[in-house]
Amino acid sequence: MTDDKNSRESAVVLLSGGIDSYTTAALAREEGYLLYAISFDYAQRHRRELHHAAVIAHKIGVEKHLVVKLNLRDIGGSALTDDIDVPKDAAPGKIGGQIPITYVPARNTIFLSVALAWAEKLGANRIFIGANAVDYSGYPDCRPAFIEAFEKMANLATKAGVEGQGIRIEAPLINLSKAQIITRGLKLGLDYSLSLSCYDPDDDSRACGQCESCVLRHKGFVEAKADDPTIYRHPPRE
Amino acid sequence: MTDDKNSRESAVVLLSGGIDSYTTAALAREEGYLLYAISFDYAQRHRRELHHAAVIAHKIGVEKHLVVKLNLRDIGGSALTDDIDVPKDAAPGKIGGQIPITYVPARNTIFLSVALAWAEKLGANRIFIGANAVDYSGYPDCRPAFIEAFEKMANLATKAGVEGQGIRIEAPLINLSKAQIITRGLKLGLDYSLSLSCYDPDDDSRACGQCESCVLRHKGFVEAKADDPTIYRHPPRE
Repeated sequence: MTDDKNSRESAVVLLSGGIDSYTTAALAREEGYLLYAISFDYAQRHRRELHHAAVIAHKIGVEKHLVVKLNLRDIGGSALTDDIDVPKDAAPGKIGGQIPITYVPARNTIFLSVALAWAEKLGANRIFIGANAVDYSGYPDCRPAFIEAFEKMANLATKAGVEGQGIRIEAPLINLSKAQIITRGLKLGLDYSLSLSCYDPDDDSRACGQCESCVLRHKGFVEAKADDPTIYRHPPRE
Repeated sequence: MTDDKNSRESAVVLLSGGIDSYTTAALAREEGYLLYAISFDYAQRHRRELHHAAVIAHKIGVEKHLVVKLNLRDIGGSALTDDIDVPKDAAPGKIGGQIPITYVPARNTIFLSVALAWAEKLGANRIFIGANAVDYSGYPDCRPAFIEAFEKMANLATKAGVEGQGIRIEAPLINLSKAQIITRGLKLGLDYSLSLSCYDPDDDSRACGQCESCVLRHKGFVEAKADDPTIYRHPPRE
């Protein structure tokens, strides 16, 4: 693709402020898309991540960063939105393992649905999501079968799907390990100190080091043989 | 099912305040479900419909009525959320016809996704939606193929689908004409004067009589040979 903005295609990218969505956005930019980043203020405990999403959106150079408010605490059912403690001793989930209490009911479905509406409005036919089914928490809505089913549904649901060019859901990290994701991002020059993965950070974005998301992140840096730039308030659990 | 609440299953029902969702909720109640009604304050121009949804929820006797705020005006792309006039001369859409400007990008996808999250939280394995593909506006997300694809996706997306009993999306009106829906509702004793269909009502819920939704509604009463209890501020367009 050329540098001429008019000739570049647009893509919507889900941006949470963590490693996966940051890397996904960078990969989409590498492919030449004009990026429209979307984040959700869903009354998550780790609302601090929205600050990191904004910093990353600026750093990546998106056309627009939309923060959509949707209070999932009204619905509940997760340690990430309810007054339930985030577990600090959970083993990160595995495919086929039990789905942990940090699972937020239908979260990726809701996020992709709103992203779909925005993509349709913008005339973008690509939605990028940093879903990952290797080093992940066992959430059902991170698996390839879910992404494929969502794409099929999206093309039946929308004017863009029925009358237009169709919608593609791109999950470029879906089969990568966390270490592979980090290695790829570092090659692209990403600064992971801008990202936040912790489910229970303090107001200065210092990570707890104990939740499943911290454990997965730290393990990724160790396995990638890269420095972990995260500031932890407790030594990270191995 | 018995009258014992503990032995009755729960269902989430999408309630907009119009004829279709009112009738759908009544049919779900007839089947014996404990009802959890969900409505959306999405910055629609006809926000007045939320008042009617609340009245109907009370009349039907739901366990809870949840109104979820989600500003789709930030996304735009529809005469129902943007500062574009609601067309007053549009022919109601047809399958295969052009999708009108009152189409809201991905609206039913978003609504069903949030309903899915709530159903999962409640342990409800049914979601009722008043989607209808006969006397409707040609919206792609009202067709049987969309409902089926959403259900398939929902069962891959959620803990309820993967580990639990699964989720069924019920659209009991999908193949009925508006007249058939009204006839069915009247047999159940529904009071359609409580409902509002107009896309451009005034503050007293008086319908414009001219938008595609008014035209479909009035035609339904005429064809059902029933009195139309709607208060119109202009004589309804035939």
